[in-house]
Amino acid sequence: MVLWSEDPTSSLTQQYTEESKELEQKLLPYDILGNLAHVKMLEKQGYLEKEELEDIEKAMKDIYGKKPEVDAEDVHTFVEEKVTEKTESGKKMHTGRSRNDQVAVDTHLFMKDMSVKIAEKGLELVKDLEKFSEEENTLIPGYTHQQQAMPSSTGLWASSFVDALIDDLKLLKSSYQVFDQSPLGAAAGYGTSLDIDREYTAELLGFESVQENTLYSVNRGKHELMLLQALNQVMLDIGKLSEDIINFSEDQEIFDIPDEFTTGSSIMPQKENPDVLEIARGKSEEVNANSQAIHGVISKLPSGYNRDTQLTKKNLFEGCETTLETLEIMKELVSGLGVVQNFDLKDEVFAAHTANQKVESDVPFREAYSEVKEEQDYVKNEEVKEPKNQSFEGLEGFWQSEKESFQEVKASLLGNSFEA
Amino acid sequence: MVLWSEDPTSSLTQQYTEESKELEQKLLPYDILGNLAHVKMLEKQGYLEKEELEDIEKAMKDIYGKKPEVDAEDVHTFVEEKVTEKTESGKKMHTGRSRNDQVAVDTHLFMKDMSVKIAEKGLELVKDLEKFSEEENTLIPGYTHQQQAMPSSTGLWASSFVDALIDDLKLLKSSYQVFDQSPLGAAAGYGTSLDIDREYTAELLGFESVQENTLYSVNRGKHELMLLQALNQVMLDIGKLSEDIINFSEDQEIFDIPDEFTTGSSIMPQKENPDVLEIARGKSEEVNANSQAIHGVISKLPSGYNRDTQLTKKNLFEGCETTLETLEIMKELVSGLGVVQNFDLKDEVFAAHTANQKVESDVPFREAYSEVKEEQDYVKNEEVKEPKNQSFEGLEGFWQSEKESFQEVKASLLGNSFEA
Amino acid sequence: MVLWSEDPTSSLTQQYTEESKELEQKLLPYDILGNLAHVKMLEKQGYLEKEELEDIEKAMKDIYGKKPEVDAEDVHTFVEEKVTEKTESGKKMHTGRSRNDQVAVDTHLFMKDMSVKIAEKGLELVKDLEKFSEEENTLIPGYTHQQQAMPSSTGLWASSFVDALIDDLKLLKSSYQVFDQSPLGAAAGYGTSLDIDREYTAELLGFESVQENTLYSVNRGKHELMLLQALNQVMLDIGKLSEDIINFSEDQEIFDIPDEFTTGSSIMPQKENPDVLEIARGKSEEVNANSQAIHGVISKLPSGYNRDTQLTKKNLFEGCETTLETLEIMKELVSGLGVVQNFDLKDEVFAAHTANQKVESDVPFREAYSEVKEEQDYVKNEEVKEPKNQSFEGLEGFWQSEKESFQEVKASLLGNSFEA
Amino acid sequence: MVLWSEDPTSSLTQQYTEESKELEQKLLPYDILGNLAHVKMLEKQGYLEKEELEDIEKAMKDIYGKKPEVDAEDVHTFVEEKVTEKTESGKKMHTGRSRNDQVAVDTHLFMKDMSVKIAEKGLELVKDLEKFSEEENTLIPGYTHQQQAMPSSTGLWASSFVDALIDDLKLLKSSYQVFDQSPLGAAAGYGTSLDIDREYTAELLGFESVQENTLYSVNRGKHELMLLQALNQVMLDIGKLSEDIINFSEDQEIFDIPDEFTTGSSIMPQKENPDVLEIARGKSEEVNANSQAIHGVISKLPSGYNRDTQLTKKNLFEGCETTLETLEIMKELVSGLGVVQNFDLKDEVFAAHTANQKVESDVPFREAYSEVKEEQDYVKNEEVKEPKNQSFEGLEGFWQSEKESFQEVKASLLGNSFEA
Repeated sequence: MVLWSEDPTSSLTQQYTEESKELEQKLLPYDILGNLAHVKMLEKQGYLEKEELEDIEKAMKDIYGKKPEVDAEDVHTFVEEKVTEKTESGKKMHTGRSRNDQVAVDTHLFMKDMSVKIAEKGLELVKDLEKFSEEENTLIPGYTHQQQAMPSSTGLWASSFVDALIDDLKLLKSSYQVFDQSPLGAAAGYGTSLDIDREYTAELLGFESVQENTLYSVNRGKHELMLLQALNQVMLDIGKLSEDIINFSEDQEIFDIPDEFTTGSSIMPQKENPDVLEIARGKSEEVNANSQAIHGVISKLPSGYNRDTQLTKKNLFEGCETTLETLEIMKELVSGLGVVQNFDLKDEVFAAHTANQKVESDVPFREAYSEVKEEQDYVKNEEVKEPKNQSFEGLEGFWQSEKESFQEVKASLLGNSFEA
Repeated sequence: MVLWSEDPTSSLTQQYTEESKELEQKLLPYDILGNLAHVKMLEKQGYLEKEELEDIEKAMKDIYGKKPEVDAEDVHTFVEEKVTEKTESGKKMHTGRSRNDQVAVDTHLFMKDMSVKIAEKGLELVKDLEKFSEEENTLIPGYTHQQQAMPSSTGLWASSFVDALIDDLKLLKSSYQVFDQSPLGAAAGYGTSLDIDREYTAELLGFESVQENTLYSVNRGKHELMLLQALNQVMLDIGKLSEDIINFSEDQEIFDIPDEFTTGSSIMPQKENPDVLEIARGKSEEVNANSQAIHGVISKLPSGYNRDTQLTKKNLFEGCETTLETLEIMKELVSGLGVVQNFDLKDEVFAAHTANQKVESDVPFREAYSEVKEEQDYVKNEEVKEPKNQSFEGLEGFWQSEKESFQEVKASLLGNSFEA
Repeated sequence: MVLWSEDPTSSLTQQYTEESKELEQKLLPYDILGNLAHVKMLEKQGYLEKEELEDIEKAMKDIYGKKPEVDAEDVHTFVEEKVTEKTESGKKMHTGRSRNDQVAVDTHLFMKDMSVKIAEKGLELVKDLEKFSEEENTLIPGYTHQQQAMPSSTGLWASSFVDALIDDLKLLKSSYQVFDQSPLGAAAGYGTSLDIDREYTAELLGFESVQENTLYSVNRGKHELMLLQALNQVMLDIGKLSEDIINFSEDQEIFDIPDEFTTGSSIMPQKENPDVLEIARGKSEEVNANSQAIHGVISKLPSGYNRDTQLTKKNLFEGCETTLETLEIMKELVSGLGVVQNFDLKDEVFAAHTANQKVESDVPFREAYSEVKEEQDYVKNEEVKEPKNQSFEGLEGFWQSEKESFQEVKASLLGNSFEA
Repeated sequence: MVLWSEDPTSSLTQQYTEESKELEQKLLPYDILGNLAHVKMLEKQGYLEKEELEDIEKAMKDIYGKKPEVDAEDVHTFVEEKVTEKTESGKKMHTGRSRNDQVAVDTHLFMKDMSVKIAEKGLELVKDLEKFSEEENTLIPGYTHQQQAMPSSTGLWASSFVDALIDDLKLLKSSYQVFDQSPLGAAAGYGTSLDIDREYTAELLGFESVQENTLYSVNRGKHELMLLQALNQVMLDIGKLSEDIINFSEDQEIFDIPDEFTTGSSIMPQKENPDVLEIARGKSEEVNANSQAIHGVISKLPSGYNRDTQLTKKNLFEGCETTLETLEIMKELVSGLGVVQNFDLKDEVFAAHTANQKVESDVPFREAYSEVKEEQDYVKNEEVKEPKNQSFEGLEGFWQSEKESFQEVKASLLGNSFEA
C-alpha cells in the first residue's frame, strides 16, 4: 500500500509498474544517503527541529546497518514508512521533495559509486595487461584480414588493449565529471516554493555541483546513457580481447588459458572450452542492449517526469554490474595467461620488411613492392616489437581521490553505523 | 559441482558463466518433458531396459510434481543428478545426447508454450478492441502530424489496432510454424554414432518436424530472434496504443482511463497518472532491446555451439514474459476504457470533405483544393466512420488447436503427475 | 515548387525535409503503376471521362518509358506536374487520394518487387550451397567453442546454411503474405467522402487484399520493418557463412576462395584478402541498423500520418538493396569455392564416438565418458557425414508465381510502353 | 584499376567492396592534408629529395584547389595516381605507410573538423535557446506524465535544453580530447622498419598526440563510435525539443512555429504541419542507428585491420552530417519561435504549492498533502519561474581555439592553394 493515500490502484497495476524488489534493495544504501542529506538540510532551513532530525537520522542509520528486506512498493516508500514507524517526524521527511528528484539523486549516487569501482577494476586490468605485455613479450604473427600479415609480438598485442582501455577510462572519467551533479531539490521537476538549499545537499553528498535546471533534473536517462556509453566502449575492448584469446588459444597455438577459466563438455571428454571468454564476448552485447534500452525508453519523451523512465534503472544496474564482474574475471584470466613458445610464422610475413629494405636502397616504394611480389624472396627480421601504449598517469589519482571522497561522504552522513 | 568430472573450474568462473537459478527454474518443466521423450526413445532403441525407463520416468514425474528448487549449475545437471540419486539408470539418460541439443529442445518447447499463451492474450485484446470499436463509436478528430486534420471516430481508431495486431498474430503464427522443429538428437551439433530416432522424439514432444541439420540445430538464437521479432511488432502496437490513450486522455479530452490503472503523485495530491500506459510504452523498448541483445550475441559467431549463445535464454524469457504481462494488463485497461462525449472538432477538419463536394460537381481536384483554401467556408459532415479491420478467423482455431496439442503432449508424457 | 500552393516554406526547410532525388528516382516506376491503377478507377467511378483517362495514361506511359530525372520536391509531385504539362486532366489525378496513401502504395509495390528478387537470389544461393554440400563433401573437423570437437563434413556444414536459409525464406514468404495488402484509397488516413473503389485498384495492382483500416494504412513502417526483420535473418546467415569461410580459408586450411573475390594489400605484396566476405559480414550489421532505424523512427508515434515516417523509406531501400547485392555476390563466391583436401583432424575428435562404442557394449554413458577421458585412446571413424537439410519445395513455385503475377500487372497497366 | 598490381579482382567484387564515390569525394581534402604531412616527413627523414617533395606538394595543392572528381577505387589510390601522372616521385609517396593508417588519419581529421563545426552550431543553438528563455519567459503549465502538474515557464523549459546541451557539448569536448590522436605511421598495424617520425606528422596535422599503439591505431571504429555517442546525446535533446514544440504548438496552444518551417497538405488545404520538427525527431533515431551500425560492425572483430571496418565510414559521415544540418535548422526555428500569450492553467497545478503553504505553517508534509487532496482548494502563485542552467564558459574558447588551430594547419600545409 502507498503510504499517503487510499489508492484504488489495482494489484495488477502494482505488479506491472513496480520494479523488482531485488532492484529496490540495491538502491537502499543510496536512498538512505540521499535522505540523510535532505533531512539535515531541512533542519538547517528550519523545516525540522533538531530533535526531529536526530530521531530521523537514528532511524535511518539503523536501517542502513540492518539492511532490512525492502517490502514496500519502492525503496523510497519503504524508508519513509520504516522511519515513520519509529518517529512521527518521518511525516516531514518528504518536505520540499518529490520521488522524482529522490530517485534521481539515488541513481546519481549509484552511478558515481559504480564508476569508481569499475575504474578501479579497469585500471587493474590495464596494469595486468601492461605487465603481461612486458614480461611475456614474444614474436608472433600479426594479422590483417584474419591472415598472417607481418611480424608482431604478444607485447604489441597486449599493449593495444592497454591503449584502448585507457581511452575508455578517460571517457569514463569525463562522463563522470559531466554527471557528477546533484538533482536533489528539483522536486517534481518544477522546484518547490519552500526555501530549500540545493547547494548544501549537493555538498553533503559529495557532488561537484548542483544540476541547475529542475526540469532537466527529472528528465531521467541521459546521464545513465552517458555512463553506459562509456561502459560500452570498455566492453567492446573486452569482446575483442576475448575473441583474440579464443583465436590465439585455439589448438593451443599461442596462448594457454588457465584451467580454472575453462570448462568441460557433457559429451566430449577431451574438451577444455574457453567459456569465460565466450560469455564475456556475449555480455559485451548485453551491455550494448542495456544502453539501447535506455536510449529507446527516453527517446522522444516530452519534457517532465514520465514513468517510462523508471525502466532505465534496471538497465543501468545490469550494465554496470555486468561490466564490473567482467572486468574482475578478465583481470584474473589475463594475469594467469600463458604463452606457448613455438609459433609458425610464414615467410611471407616479412614481405613488407623486404620491400622496405629495397626502399632504403633508394628503390621507389611502388617498384620495390612489385619486385617483392614477383621474387617471393624474403629478408627475415626476428626482432620482437616492444609494447607501446599511452600513459595512464592522472587516471589513478583521480579515481583514488573520488573513492576516498565517497568514503568521507558516507562516514560523515552515517557516523558510527558506517564505521561499524 | 559438475556431475561427471573433477572440474578445476573456479567458483569465480562458475558464478560468471552460470545462468541465474531463477531462469533455470523456469526451464525445469520443459527440461523434464524433453528428458521424458528422450528416455522413451532410448528404451525403444534398446539403450535402456523397460525397468530402467520406468525408474527414470517415475523419478522425473516426481520432480515435475514437486518442483524442487534447482540448485545445480544448470537445470540439465540438476535433473540428471536428482534422477541418479533415485536410480543408477540415471547414468544412462545422457546417452546419445549433449547439453547442446538438450537446451535447444527445452527452449523450443518454451517458445511454443509461450507463443500459445501470447497469441491467446493477443486475441483477447483484439476482441476487446473490436468490441470497444463497435460499442463506443463516436465522432472524434482524426490527426495527421499530431494536429486535427479530418473527422475520425473512436471506432476507426480502435479498429486500426485490431488490424495491426492481426497482422502481428499472423506473423507470430508463421514464425511459430518455422521454429516448430525438434533439435533433439543433434547432440553436440554433429549427431551421434548411436542409433537414435529423432522422428520419434519429435512426435512425442508434439513438434511438426525434426530440425534436419544437426549443426544448424545447435546454432542457437535464430529461432529465438524470430519469435522476438514477432513480439516486437506486437509491442510496437502496444506502444502506439499507449501513446494514443495518454494523448487522448490528457486533460480528459476523449478517453477516461479507469482509476485502477492510474496512480497518484507523492507531491501533487491532485494527480491521476497513466503509469500503466507509460510503463507499457517503455517496455516496448525493452522487448526491442531483448531482440537486439539476441542479435548482437549470435551475430558473426562461427558455426558450432558457442557458449555466448547461452545469453539468448535470458533475453528470450524476458521478451516473452514482458509481452505476455503487457497484453494481460492492456486487455483489462481497454475493456474498462471510457469515452467522454463532448469533443471540439475544429471546422477546418471538414476542408477535404468540402473540396470533395466541389469535385462531385466536376471541379478538378486541384482547383477545388485552392478554392477551399481561399474561401475557408466548410461543409460539415458529422457522419461517424465505421470501424474497419480484417478478419481474424483462422487464427483462433490454429492457436486453440496448438494449445490442446501441447496439453496432450504433457498428458501423454507425464501421465498422472500432470493430471494431479 | 509545390504544385498546388504558394508555400512560404523556406529553401532550408525543403532541403532538410526532402528525400534525396536518387531515392525518389527509384520510386518512379512504382509511383506510375500506382497512378495508373488510381486513374483507371477514377474513370470507372465517373470522376474522369474516358478521354481524360486516355490522355493521362498516355502521359504516364511516356514517363515510364523515358525515365526522366525527378527534379520536383518528390516523385508524386513530379509525376503530377509532368502529366499536367501534357494535359489539363492531370489536375484531376489527385482526386480521392492523398500523398499519404500514395507513398504507402508505392512502397508496398517496391517491397513486393524486391521480395521476389531477393527470394530468387536466395533460392539460387540455397541451390549452390546444396550442390556444394553434395559435390564437395569431405571429412573436416567439427567445431564447438571454436575448437575441434567431433568429425564433421563440408557437406554437413554447407547444408546447415541451406537449412537456415530455407527457414528465412519461409519467413520472408509469410511476411510477404502479411504485407501484400493495398493501402491505396486510405487517403490521408481517414478515407474519403468520394465514391472510390479500393478493391478494384488492389486487383489492378495485384495485391492479395485491401488493407482494411485506413488509419492503419498510413501508420507507415510496420510492414517495412517486417520485411527487414526477415532480411535480417538472411543476413545473419550470410554473416556466419562469411565468418566460417574466412576462418576455414585462413592459412588455406580447408577452403580456397576464388581469386576474383579477394583483393591485394597496398603494403604487403603477398596478401590475398577475403574482402568480399568481410564486407558481407559488416553489411549484415548495416541491415540490422536499417531495421533499428525503422523501429526507432516509428516507435511511440501517435496514430495518423507523421512526417518522421518518411525516413523509413531510405532505410527500407538500403536494407533491401544491400541484401540483394550480398546474395548475388555470395552465390558467385560459393559456386567457385574450392576445398583443399588435406586437413589435420586431431585424434581427440573421436572421443565421443569412442564413448558411444562403449555404450553400445552396455556401459552407462557417464561411465563410458569417464573412461574415455582417462584412457585417451580413441576409436577413429572416418565416415563422412551426409549433408542434411529440409526441402524447399513449395518456396520456388510460390515465388515464381508471384514474379509472373507482378509481370502481368505491369503488362496490363503499361501496355506497349512496358513491352517496348 | 588498382595502381600497383594486376589484380584479378572481378568487377562484381570491386562494385561490392568499394565505397560510393560521393563518400570518397568528401574525404579528398583530408586525404591531401594527410599526404602533405607524410611527404614532408619523408623528406625530413631522407626518403625523398627536396625537389621530389616540391613536385609532389605542387601536384597535391593543385588537386586540392581543383577538387577533381574521384574516379579511382578509393581516394587514396586516386590521389597517388594523380600525383604520379604529374611526377614520377609519386611512386615514393606510399613509403612507410599503408592504406590502413592513411584512411585512419583521414577519418580522424574529418572527425576533428566536424566536431568543431557541430560544436559551433550547438553553441549557437544554446545561445538562441538561452535568449529565448530570457526574452520570452511566460507562465505555462509544467507537465508530469504528460498532464498539467505544476506551474512552469517557457524560460524554465527552454533553459532545460540549454542545460542538457551543455552537458552534451562537454561530452563532445572530452571525446574530442580522447580521439585527438594521430594514427599516421601505424602502417598496416605493425609499424614499419623504416625510420619514420610519427611525432612530426602528428604536429604538422595539429594532433594533440600520437596514437601510440600501432595495432590499436588500425582497429578502426572505437573513436568513430565515441564521437557518434556524443552526437547521439545531442540528437536525443533535439528529439525531445521537437516533441515538446510539436505538443506545445498543437492547436496553437503555447507556441507558434514560424511558417517557413511548416508545410502544407496535398489534400487538406487548411493544414500547417510541423514537418521540420517531425523530421528532426526521426533523424535523432537515424543517428542512433548509425552508431549502432558502427558498434555492430566492429564488435567481436579480432585485432588487426579487417575490411568490415570500412563500413564505419559511411555511418560516421551520415551521423555527423545529420547532426550538423539538424542543429542548423533547429537554431533558425528556435530563433523564430513565437509564444502565444493566453494559456489555461488548471487550478490543480497549484496543489503542491498549497501543500507547501501549510508546511510553512508547520503542518507535516504528509498531512498537508492529505488535506489539500481532500479540500481541493488551491492557493495560486502566478510568479514566473526564472530560466536556470549551467554556464558554458570554457566551451566557447576551447572550440574557437580548435577551429583556429585547424585553419592554421591547413594554411601551413597548403600555402597559397588554401588561401586562394
